[in-house]
Amino acid sequence: MSDILGRGVPSSIEGYGRAKPFAGALQVVGPISRAATVVRCASPGVPKTLPSVRAALDACELRDGATISFHHHLRNGDRVLNLVLSEIAAKGLKDITVAASALFPVHAPLVDHIQREVVSGLAASTIYGPLADAVSRGQLAKPVLMSTHGGRARCIESGALHIDVAFVAAPTADEYGNLNGVNGRAACGPLGYAAPDVQYADRVVAITDNLVPYPATPIEISQDCVDFIVAVDSIGDPEQIVSGTTRLTSDPLGLQIAEMAARIIEASGLLNEGFSFQTGAGGVSLAAATYLRDIMIRRKVQGSFASGGITGGIVQMFDVGLFRALLDVQAFDLEAVASYRRSPAHHGMSASMYANPHNRGCVVNQLDAVILGAAEIDVAFNVNVTTGNGGMILGGSGGHADTAAGSKLTLITTQLTAGRVPKIVDRVKTLTTPGESVDAVVTEAGVAVNPRRTDLLDRLKCANVPLVSIECLRDAAARKAGPPNAVAVEDNRIVAVVEYRDGTVIDVVRAVPKVSTAKTWREDESPDRG
Amino acid sequence: MSDILGRGVPSSIEGYGRAKPFAGALQVVGPISRAATVVRCASPGVPKTLPSVRAALDACELRDGATISFHHHLRNGDRVLNLVLSEIAAKGLKDITVAASALFPVHAPLVDHIQREVVSGLAASTIYGPLADAVSRGQLAKPVLMSTHGGRARCIESGALHIDVAFVAAPTADEYGNLNGVNGRAACGPLGYAAPDVQYADRVVAITDNLVPYPATPIEISQDCVDFIVAVDSIGDPEQIVSGTTRLTSDPLGLQIAEMAARIIEASGLLNEGFSFQTGAGGVSLAAATYLRDIMIRRKVQGSFASGGITGGIVQMFDVGLFRALLDVQAFDLEAVASYRRSPAHHGMSASMYANPHNRGCVVNQLDAVILGAAEIDVAFNVNVTTGNGGMILGGSGGHADTAAGSKLTLITTQLTAGRVPKIVDRVKTLTTPGESVDAVVTEAGVAVNPRRTDLLDRLKCANVPLVSIECLRDAAARKAGPPNAVAVEDNRIVAVVEYRDGTVIDVVRAVPKVSTAKTWREDESPDRG
Repeated sequence: MSDILGRGVPSSIEGYGRAKPFAGALQVVGPISRAATVVRCASPGVPKTLPSVRAALDACELRDGATISFHHHLRNGDRVLNLVLSEIAAKGLKDITVAASALFPVHAPLVDHIQREVVSGLAASTIYGPLADAVSRGQLAKPVLMSTHGGRARCIESGALHIDVAFVAAPTADEYGNLNGVNGRAACGPLGYAAPDVQYADRVVAITDNLVPYPATPIEISQDCVDFIVAVDSIGDPEQIVSGTTRLTSDPLGLQIAEMAARIIEASGLLNEGFSFQTGAGGVSLAAATYLRDIMIRRKVQGSFASGGITGGIVQMFDVGLFRALLDVQAFDLEAVASYRRSPAHHGMSASMYANPHNRGCVVNQLDAVILGAAEIDVAFNVNVTTGNGGMILGGSGGHADTAAGSKLTLITTQLTAGRVPKIVDRVKTLTTPGESVDAVVTEAGVAVNPRRTDLLDRLKCANVPLVSIECLRDAAARKAGPPNAVAVEDNRIVAVVEYRDGTVIDVVRAVPKVSTAKTWREDESPDRG
Repeated sequence: MSDILGRGVPSSIEGYGRAKPFAGALQVVGPISRAATVVRCASPGVPKTLPSVRAALDACELRDGATISFHHHLRNGDRVLNLVLSEIAAKGLKDITVAASALFPVHAPLVDHIQREVVSGLAASTIYGPLADAVSRGQLAKPVLMSTHGGRARCIESGALHIDVAFVAAPTADEYGNLNGVNGRAACGPLGYAAPDVQYADRVVAITDNLVPYPATPIEISQDCVDFIVAVDSIGDPEQIVSGTTRLTSDPLGLQIAEMAARIIEASGLLNEGFSFQTGAGGVSLAAATYLRDIMIRRKVQGSFASGGITGGIVQMFDVGLFRALLDVQAFDLEAVASYRRSPAHHGMSASMYANPHNRGCVVNQLDAVILGAAEIDVAFNVNVTTGNGGMILGGSGGHADTAAGSKLTLITTQLTAGRVPKIVDRVKTLTTPGESVDAVVTEAGVAVNPRRTDLLDRLKCANVPLVSIECLRDAAARKAGPPNAVAVEDNRIVAVVEYRDGTVIDVVRAVPKVSTAKTWREDESPDRG
């Protein structure tokens, strides 16, 4: 099989193994197998609480070379991963693979664990901060496995990513392992990204700072999936768990793009009774949702659901009846947490239900429209949300490639440039989301529709949308950015393998020179991933 | 390994295979494996609704020799099993195994399907009605697999019971397969017994008479587990789904036994803050719950949870704050359905979470006290809820053996005789629940405590409970019943294999002479199983 996007993905990658090349966004596969699992059975009367993380490591018989997993609902406020890793280091273990659903600046101590060979492998859907810089500079011997949110669930279920011990940061837990993210100081909302882990890991340890009398309800992760419970002082910093009140952009160009995105959705023919929608937490997306809200009210349309990553902006639309339900894999802010707590139709979902292409039908398949961001987009409509300027890792797919593949209409909103860097280019540095699943790029200089979507093109022509070719946008971006810095294209070592949601390899990330300067991660500057 | 209870279980049983003998109620096992599963993946835009059951059988490529599964939340009102089987018969398929969580009188058409060789195998936790009679008389070539409720989940998860197609009777469904039992004409409450089936079956078909716009919320079974959805006129007769308003016994002996059971719980030392409780839907159990309610109010005790099979009586205790939560695998009446709909702390649970011994800790492990019934109990405290007078199958364990094993205090309530049949005997005809997990037998002629429970004996002595030996109860029962009918003990063919919850074989049921008269099943006469 060939590398159809011409990304130069080798057929075999050291530290990863055989790379199955990307073969199209919607490959129909035959029956797929999910891995057999192993469970240690609990006898009546045997307690499951342990006095410390160290005791849990001992009880799980964690050994050199093991794979441990974490979920990222506490985002940049998470204290659990660092706590567990420091105990692992203190125990003298080596060669651990950390498989997290996402890694944040707060997880910078992993850089040290990598240098000391405590950690030798990483897997994550997105990586931000000093750890991303360290990986980009080649400090990890093996390449990082970068999945989509749905792909991570698939990878775990298939057995390709086998987890020895899953650690669950539980805002509330009881002594027999019923867990929820609804209550507690570190309440974070749904625990959807931990769902595959607790189903497939050999051992599951819940770590909580809110141990309540049995049974803890509501039950999001149930006792039959949890081996041990450890109470600690704090699992996370509530101030950092979510972004706080998310803000609409006030930038005039951003508002113009947002308004255009909403107009395209209106013109697409999809904005009918039962409309479904997803967007992220970025300023443009939030503004687009506001414009969309006004259109829905004007047209008297009630949507079926919004999904994601739910923000306060989406909650407000739900609360006034513009959506009948919210399907939520992780809360992006405290308004979303509060809504999840109070509204029965604000429903949690597992990562697999959300976005796994290898199940009986995930939620992204039901989406009408999604608005996403981009670090770069190229003339083939391929999107990069994995690497930034100079090739440094600044994120990863998250739900980007998943929602783009599932949604009937995928809009990428972006300005032509970011500072002196053009965002519409000939060829993306890293390919995260294939152009075949992107329908239009919305910029301040016009809207480029993917030529595959002649139907959409016809509709937008009638709706007075300023249509341009993607090549025109590229040229305009280049003019605005000015002459590019020469970037040395070297055949450096592969530091990350970008898996498409179905487990094929869509691209690789190569090491950057060690002299590049790191940029501090800010969530509101990160491209929207859904 | 030997047959420690001396039940004469052969080491190999035709049509079943090797029989692993029962080795004790609380065998500690090493790591156990759960089966790998197979999933067909859904592509975006491909609908999952089909016009008929026949179309679903075709889409699933159901073949001769397949195993199909059903759950019993619609109880004696279920129309789905008969509908599916009549389509299977019309299609000309043969040699089908029907693996249901329970089978009721309404499923009598299975007798005809057995005679016509459409159906050649059965598995169920309980079997009532004409089908039970037919099985008892040897009309099925292979023995029925009779599990406990928790054992059935274990059996499916382990792969020992592989399901080709699971059929889910869904009181509410959307077109992409989100299901609940909360809403709809046939609302039945939690769908807990279907949970293992949809996780492990090769194919899952939801059959509904209430197809609602996407997404159907609350979501009890999610779209990622469901292949196809078929809308039909009616999945069940709401009048028959549940027993209607359950009634306390008015029989003076029954009330006396119920009051004594409540007094024993009070005297046991378990009735403290956080107390947990389960009982069934029988008249004595309901009365016992009422006495217990009064004691809890008097002692100002708030319980943690009640579990089961939830009835209106338990809901009333929950509603006045005597329990903080209800953990519910199936609603026994419409009051329970209504409570499940309105109360967030009335929580659904899967059969595995409820009672599977081979997971990381099931709910029965957390029980303080359970009150159960019996068809027979013997001097070793072994209980039979599988066969009745003459050896005819009249039920099966359901949750009986599960709750008895998990609960700190297991009380069996029974009168000495039923008509002219003694209920305390030398040796039960069929062993469902081993004596080691039974703590006391409560009758109108006194309370017999299992001699293993010297602690309980001491407490009850101080509480002025009329203690007698189990042998005294046996003798009193025999006197009251009068001379027994001679029962021919023949070494007939095995018609059912009684699996203990861990998958060992605790007993077998042998064919009865074809001349025995069948008795119509009445739910309120059936021994309480929890």
